[in-house]
Amino acid sequence: MSSTRQMVEAYPGDPFAPVDELVACIEACLACAQACTACADACLGEEHVADLRACIRSDADCADVCTATAAVLSRQTEPDLRVVAALLEACAVACGQCAAECEQHVGMHEHCRVCAEACRRCEAACRALLASMA
Amino acid sequence: MSSTRQMVEAYPGDPFAPVDELVACIEACLACAQACTACADACLGEEHVADLRACIRSDADCADVCTATAAVLSRQTEPDLRVVAALLEACAVACGQCAAECEQHVGMHEHCRVCAEACRRCEAACRALLASMA
Amino acid sequence: MSSTRQMVEAYPGDPFAPVDELVACIEACLACAQACTACADACLGEEHVADLRACIRSDADCADVCTATAAVLSRQTEPDLRVVAALLEACAVACGQCAAECEQHVGMHEHCRVCAEACRRCEAACRALLASMA
Amino acid sequence: MSSTRQMVEAYPGDPFAPVDELVACIEACLACAQACTACADACLGEEHVADLRACIRSDADCADVCTATAAVLSRQTEPDLRVVAALLEACAVACGQCAAECEQHVGMHEHCRVCAEACRRCEAACRALLASMA
Repeated sequence: MSSTRQMVEAYPGDPFAPVDELVACIEACLACAQACTACADACLGEEHVADLRACIRSDADCADVCTATAAVLSRQTEPDLRVVAALLEACAVACGQCAAECEQHVGMHEHCRVCAEACRRCEAACRALLASMA
Repeated sequence: MSSTRQMVEAYPGDPFAPVDELVACIEACLACAQACTACADACLGEEHVADLRACIRSDADCADVCTATAAVLSRQTEPDLRVVAALLEACAVACGQCAAECEQHVGMHEHCRVCAEACRRCEAACRALLASMA
Repeated sequence: MSSTRQMVEAYPGDPFAPVDELVACIEACLACAQACTACADACLGEEHVADLRACIRSDADCADVCTATAAVLSRQTEPDLRVVAALLEACAVACGQCAAECEQHVGMHEHCRVCAEACRRCEAACRALLASMA
Repeated sequence: MSSTRQMVEAYPGDPFAPVDELVACIEACLACAQACTACADACLGEEHVADLRACIRSDADCADVCTATAAVLSRQTEPDLRVVAALLEACAVACGQCAAECEQHVGMHEHCRVCAEACRRCEAACRALLASMA
């Protein structure tokens, strides 16, 4: 059992959303933030870095939004569901956009392939958590 | 002249939004993130911390969202305006909610008064930037 | 295989440190940041929150340092090893201090037990990576 | 009066360090994080981005460390001075390294000139705060 699930279950009160969807979304955000930071850096290390500007930009934004979302979702005390929902929506948009960018380079760059998959998983996890909160 | 404005103006290309609104919003996000982090900590230092749980939670979330927003707005290369707009919307919602929470304690706690003002300024700056991008 | 390892291995060049130690440290930092954010929030939700001020403070700092460290370690391009080493040292200090704080509450709070373990794992991973870079 | 100083002074207790040095360092960290994020992005927008890889990398790391340092310094409750000192040391190292990198391009790029100054100010502010805590 991951420590994310342990931490969610150790909270002294009821979770604000179904535990499975919540844990999955926190872990997807953490993995996506890491993949995006590493993909931006790997693009920077490529010979044709000038062709990868849009990918580096998307990666940097997506990493920032996923990091913030993972932190907000890790809190259960006195949640405001409008704030959580608005951030989940922004995170899904950022992940979807970054995935679409990375998917243009999957044939050339393995880091873009792995990153695109992490973005699509996180986008889906945000959408699933939003649906479970409705 | 602040270094934020200098940095926006030094970018080798056109900004993705009007410079005045962009600079104001970046600086409001930075100030709000700082105020919220400090307000959460000041609430924690109060004798009646147990009555300030919702304020501490709101502060923590608002700081995370404002930090991410300041970073995303600081980038001009190959922007995706849907990502920027979704994050600005989330930031305005988080600031508005945190302001409403802090405003309940302005008579008791100076840190809540200063923080509420920083949140309202940031909420307005996000809305103004969104309007300027439409 | 985790996406962290895939991303490290997909970098177009040699890693700046042994891959096993590097991947372990990135993943320990991400898990520790999540555990600390959740532990601060769980402490805030406890009836005796006023007795947990030092724990909440340590958690918040440790989460911030671990998040920054995970990001810096995820980059391989043109590393400056003095910067990496100084941040790893700060991260190990923050994790060790937070673990010591949480360990005072393991009999009372499961979230402190899980968080203390995440902190000790991250502290050890930072020390192991530092040793491998020497 | 900036809201940073107002927030430090509104804390219900004594500050852990001299207020002037503390406020100056928080504000220098916030300004440096913004400048570094913007400089990395401006370098990415330059025609000769391939020559600016080390600058982009240094900027990204420095922004992450400064953001974490600004947050940790914004907290006054139950500080652990070893953690604060280790992070200030890492921040000074990151700022000094990033300044040295940007200073190689000040003749070519105004964004590197402004960023190098923000880094040097932040490095000095970290060193001054460390000295005041000794």
